[in-house]
Amino acid sequence: MSHPAATLSEQPFAIAAERAWDTTAPGVRRKIMVHGPDLMLVRVEFEQGAIGARHHHPHRQATYVLSGRFRATIGAESRELVAGDCFFAAADVPHDVEALDAGALLDAFTPRRDDFLGA
Amino acid sequence: MSHPAATLSEQPFAIAAERAWDTTAPGVRRKIMVHGPDLMLVRVEFEQGAIGARHHHPHRQATYVLSGRFRATIGAESRELVAGDCFFAAADVPHDVEALDAGALLDAFTPRRDDFLGA
Repeated sequence: MSHPAATLSEQPFAIAAERAWDTTAPGVRRKIMVHGPDLMLVRVEFEQGAIGARHHHPHRQATYVLSGRFRATIGAESRELVAGDCFFAAADVPHDVEALDAGALLDAFTPRRDDFLGA
Repeated sequence: MSHPAATLSEQPFAIAAERAWDTTAPGVRRKIMVHGPDLMLVRVEFEQGAIGARHHHPHRQATYVLSGRFRATIGAESRELVAGDCFFAAADVPHDVEALDAGALLDAFTPRRDDFLGA
């Protein structure tokens, strides 16, 4: 079944208050924001101690720390990141995050994560 | 001449405090954060009343409002956006923003804006 946000491809505006949260893992939830076939923004919130488990995908991912404090591991390198910092995962590079404090990330993907839309 | 950030293609981390601001228009400055050939994140700060003048480019752009209040016009549609809201500009669609209050945007582009890197 496709996600309601799947119908919003290349729509010019996304109002955060109108978008529903999806729970994706214990203590982790996300809102799919704007997207087109080759670009997608997703806001992800983490409770303190929550984990974005190590995974990889062919999509390139660039992530901006909106709030909180995270330990991010990209390939073999780990760093502690705070608001304003970013990480970049090239195609198929394994990556994971741990929320050292409660916080939020903004994930940008190219191409779009069609798997998030149930497509 | 290329921008110092041009050397950082596909580097896994970008620490905001280590990145320099570039002034791009009156009351507008930006920091180039992470990027690879097909994905780039750029933080842009606006003083109250500053303008991102109407322009277009073949790159697809997805923008997240980090803070403040903006009027964004994408093609023929305008909306007022606050923190958490987003806009999407498909390829070659004219777009502009006005900072109704001082604030900041996070711009994601695919492919990378090589023009920002002086490439």
